[in-house]
Amino acid sequence: MDAAALNRFLKTDFPQAAHFVVEDASAMSARIRLPVSQDDLRPGGTVSGPTMFGLADVAIYVAVLAMIGPVALAVTTNASIDFMRKPQAGRDLIAEARLLKLGRVLAVGDVLIRSDGSDAPVARASLTYSIPPK
Amino acid sequence: MDAAALNRFLKTDFPQAAHFVVEDASAMSARIRLPVSQDDLRPGGTVSGPTMFGLADVAIYVAVLAMIGPVALAVTTNASIDFMRKPQAGRDLIAEARLLKLGRVLAVGDVLIRSDGSDAPVARASLTYSIPPK
Amino acid sequence: MDAAALNRFLKTDFPQAAHFVVEDASAMSARIRLPVSQDDLRPGGTVSGPTMFGLADVAIYVAVLAMIGPVALAVTTNASIDFMRKPQAGRDLIAEARLLKLGRVLAVGDVLIRSDGSDAPVARASLTYSIPPK
Amino acid sequence: MDAAALNRFLKTDFPQAAHFVVEDASAMSARIRLPVSQDDLRPGGTVSGPTMFGLADVAIYVAVLAMIGPVALAVTTNASIDFMRKPQAGRDLIAEARLLKLGRVLAVGDVLIRSDGSDAPVARASLTYSIPPK
Repeated sequence: MDAAALNRFLKTDFPQAAHFVVEDASAMSARIRLPVSQDDLRPGGTVSGPTMFGLADVAIYVAVLAMIGPVALAVTTNASIDFMRKPQAGRDLIAEARLLKLGRVLAVGDVLIRSDGSDAPVARASLTYSIPPK
Repeated sequence: MDAAALNRFLKTDFPQAAHFVVEDASAMSARIRLPVSQDDLRPGGTVSGPTMFGLADVAIYVAVLAMIGPVALAVTTNASIDFMRKPQAGRDLIAEARLLKLGRVLAVGDVLIRSDGSDAPVARASLTYSIPPK
Repeated sequence: MDAAALNRFLKTDFPQAAHFVVEDASAMSARIRLPVSQDDLRPGGTVSGPTMFGLADVAIYVAVLAMIGPVALAVTTNASIDFMRKPQAGRDLIAEARLLKLGRVLAVGDVLIRSDGSDAPVARASLTYSIPPK
Repeated sequence: MDAAALNRFLKTDFPQAAHFVVEDASAMSARIRLPVSQDDLRPGGTVSGPTMFGLADVAIYVAVLAMIGPVALAVTTNASIDFMRKPQAGRDLIAEARLLKLGRVLAVGDVLIRSDGSDAPVARASLTYSIPPK
């Protein structure tokens, strides 16, 4: 699946992720943009932890779908996330995901999240997805 | 802070967590209820990962606040979560948090999430909070 | 398998873990003792991270074996560990493991490590084991 | 500190890590080689989890030391590791570490471990180090 097909799939099958934008999906990697809205902010102007978790989660999910096609029932089994810096105010978040393993039943990947236009990572995450049998 | 004071604090200072209910806050522990709504569900009827992440995050935050008082700017620095079972349909989620360390600058705790009325854990999480200097 | 059978199994099939002592193995739980030796210490008198990691790893492994019998090829797929306090000098370490999920292909559990005779946890860990098909 | 100084420091101040070889230490990154010996192997010919944990731990430690100089008492506070593939028999392990954050009190980094000569990652890890005040 390419970026356009992935964006359609998120909109139709995964409405909670409809505000994420798949910018790129290549071999074993994906780049996702989160246009940050007021709803995502916490006191102090930072983006909430659950929002960043959701962004990392979708980024790996999209990287898996790009490789194996639409599998709505793949589920996250484990995630570890480090929050390292406050995002820059008024900037979108960009998640770069890479798959490190794509097995028959498990996929493992990691994600770096940055504020758009900045090099310093805001958060990093690693996630494991369970892929249902066909 | 007791459960009533914590519920007031969440409503006024942390509106994104206003739908969580602090049921109990004792020495180094807290119990939080999430009345599951349609917005929290994913395809297949499961509660979304970000929602469970948010529940675990708030549960540790509340356990910290119960010990040290209202500190709006405590932030999560690390979280690890395992999703183990599908929650039961139509049941609230209950998070039981315990603090394992409450230092001057870092707090560490873990959380078990269950469907109300069930013993089998749906998810477990461990989190580290950074406590700002006074 | 009970504690005696598990100790024999570690000695014969898992010689790197021969210095661990299984003290108890009950339904979905296990308690393991590490008699701390000079080799396990780091500068400052603390027990090394890899040694504590190994203790947590064996504790979950033993809890799994106690339930399903000797499966030498079960492997750890994920571990997350928090180091919270310096162990007390000259004391053994005690790991208490509990299984939170024992599925057909994956087992998930967590572990608290304490210095013998102390309540304050030195470390906590959560681990996922992959169980090979029969 | 450059690679030669780091190797000397490991030998004198950190004898448990004396068998690791620092191959490179640049800005915010380090590459460490583990010459795999019989002691590091588990049943089935795989390298033990604690050995790979120790390799990841030293790789981040070295990357921190390369930036801030010899600080023997920096300690790991959190680690998350995914074991993804069996290492290749008879090959050294190579760990590539990168620092993602180097703050005043905390450093965060991640590590990829591969068998020498192979691209497929054997394990990934992310670690947090606490840096003692001067």
